[in-house]
Amino acid sequence: MGSKAERVQEAVREAIVEYQELNDSNVQVVGEEPSPLEFMRLVALNRPCLIKKGARNWTAVRKWNSKYLSNVMRDEEVEVAVSPLGNADAPVKTENGDYWFVKPLDKTINFVAAVEHIKMEEASAEQGPHVQYCQSQNDNMRNEYSPLLDDIPRDIPWARIALEKTPDAINFWLGHSKSTTSLHKDNYENVYVQVVGSKTFTILPPVETACVNEQMLPTATYVEDSEGRLVPTLDDDPSPRPFPLWDPDQPEENASPLSKYARPIVVTLEPGDMFYLPSMWWHKVAQKCGEEGICVAVNYWYDMNFNGSLYSLEKMAQGVSWALFQEEGDQRREHGEKQEL
Amino acid sequence: MGSKAERVQEAVREAIVEYQELNDSNVQVVGEEPSPLEFMRLVALNRPCLIKKGARNWTAVRKWNSKYLSNVMRDEEVEVAVSPLGNADAPVKTENGDYWFVKPLDKTINFVAAVEHIKMEEASAEQGPHVQYCQSQNDNMRNEYSPLLDDIPRDIPWARIALEKTPDAINFWLGHSKSTTSLHKDNYENVYVQVVGSKTFTILPPVETACVNEQMLPTATYVEDSEGRLVPTLDDDPSPRPFPLWDPDQPEENASPLSKYARPIVVTLEPGDMFYLPSMWWHKVAQKCGEEGICVAVNYWYDMNFNGSLYSLEKMAQGVSWALFQEEGDQRREHGEKQEL
Ligand SMILES: O=C(O)CCC(=O)C(=O)O
Ligand SMILES: O=C(O)CCC(=O)C(=O)O
Repeated sequence: MGSKAERVQEAVREAIVEYQELNDSNVQVVGEEPSPLEFMRLVALNRPCLIKKGARNWTAVRKWNSKYLSNVMRDEEVEVAVSPLGNADAPVKTENGDYWFVKPLDKTINFVAAVEHIKMEEASAEQGPHVQYCQSQNDNMRNEYSPLLDDIPRDIPWARIALEKTPDAINFWLGHSKSTTSLHKDNYENVYVQVVGSKTFTILPPVETACVNEQMLPTATYVEDSEGRLVPTLDDDPSPRPFPLWDPDQPEENASPLSKYARPIVVTLEPGDMFYLPSMWWHKVAQKCGEEGICVAVNYWYDMNFNGSLYSLEKMAQGVSWALFQEEGDQRREHGEKQEL
Repeated sequence: MGSKAERVQEAVREAIVEYQELNDSNVQVVGEEPSPLEFMRLVALNRPCLIKKGARNWTAVRKWNSKYLSNVMRDEEVEVAVSPLGNADAPVKTENGDYWFVKPLDKTINFVAAVEHIKMEEASAEQGPHVQYCQSQNDNMRNEYSPLLDDIPRDIPWARIALEKTPDAINFWLGHSKSTTSLHKDNYENVYVQVVGSKTFTILPPVETACVNEQMLPTATYVEDSEGRLVPTLDDDPSPRPFPLWDPDQPEENASPLSKYARPIVVTLEPGDMFYLPSMWWHKVAQKCGEEGICVAVNYWYDMNFNGSLYSLEKMAQGVSWALFQEEGDQRREHGEKQEL
């Protein structure tokens, strides 16, 4: 039978495998927006859904290009996230082998300059030292980007009616193919709309939490040194926070004992596609540009329900994973040393 | 930090306590039947709901009494579950301290005789040696009890529309105050309608699975011996099955290390009340008779969705509980010896 901890790990593995047996290995694709009831069924299942061309008639989808955006936004200052490799909000291995959770350097610049920088970076063969990504994730559509707000719906009617709430945030995303968003999860029901270019989501259901190898990482931020290089620098309060070390695109590295049982689902959004990503799903996001060298999207975050069984059962799964697999400080360093990136 | 197993147990405890902080300690009570969308929101939350007098206009609620039932059903043979203490489908402690999962003796008798026996048992001061409960739980309304089928709806419209299915079973329950249904759970969305007398459900959410102390119990059935006594007798295939040993009404006995964190919710159904008991909730059910000495109910079982996150996360919680708390054969005996009922 093995030790109790071994039996617990085996129970977690069995639930993961059973989930995979009971569920499609693909995202469901539909051709029309759901009714509130149909959407609520997806929320109840906590299953993603791609609504192919669901936003085809949005003004944003029909009109947005670099000229239009630059014209409407010409007087606006916007926040850009700057990181050396396009890896904002990501675990980064430090010289001594430790991983830190490193946030981007936030800069405020004129929107037109941001678009031009992004197009320039996309066009250049090498990786520039400063990848910029407009991704402030703070309801920026209703703030910095409000001149563009009339081009999109104020909310998603079927989501508002089903969930009985308006979106907590509407976010504008503008980047290029060198920016990625590393594997993480959000406590939101996410309706994501691709406008220009494409995005590829690599996603894992909450039941696969034990596969992502969340470790406690000190928090840091990229800071520009005197030569303009971006250097990860521990925050004043670097209190560690849990973050996945495992990357579905490098599955052999930084694996937990259960990572090999993960079955990531990959889904690509083209312009006009709407994607429902349910709360608490792990997602890694990569992007490709349209002809003009930009990738643009908008998403709506609806607060998830924290009452009910799902949230607490997922917290249990996460807590059990931490208890099984989280390493103490010393082990973590050792682990880092063993597994060079 | 303690051992891994201790940390796992602590993670489970934390999720249970967090659930209780985030959720009402009562069942929500509403005055009208929900719409399909409203019902789907409850299903998504996996939260129970009492629809006070929701079935007040049902023919069954207005007409059923012992005379009416006996008249309509006078020619029918029905199955009754017979057990010494009204404890059918329950863990029973055997002489050597082991627990068995003991099923009732099933008898087929004339319905009128069953009603008379139940009324007689209810009226008698002592516990009779043979408690009878019509509770075959096998879609009996559409079989043995089909003469009564016109008195109830064929399904629950808001449940059928929301869940996109018809009921898997419609069950008729006829018993008296000595019958109880011991703590268990079902993989059904349950719409339970009280018709005569009252029922008290003591319920626990799926996240509290680690509190119910499921142990592997050999299966047995009550068999009548030559003197007519009911004796638990191991089945031909007594393969053990998991069953809760903990009883929310005897919380000190047969407890798992986490039983003390359970917060059972008690809800009583009066005639005409409808109760939505979500899938996978633990429930123990007791009953009181109406004036005539009978207690009658009808319920609709809709198959739950096994895909999606909820089922698999609950399976994980259950598997983790088993890994932590299930005893090997010898320990179980010892445990039984220590804790006399
Ligand atoms: O578009 C991206 O880069 C990331 C999107 C994301 O993480 C989200 O919508 O939650
Ligand atoms: O009414 C009873 O005795 C038990 C009901 C029950 O367990 C159920 O409806 O699942």
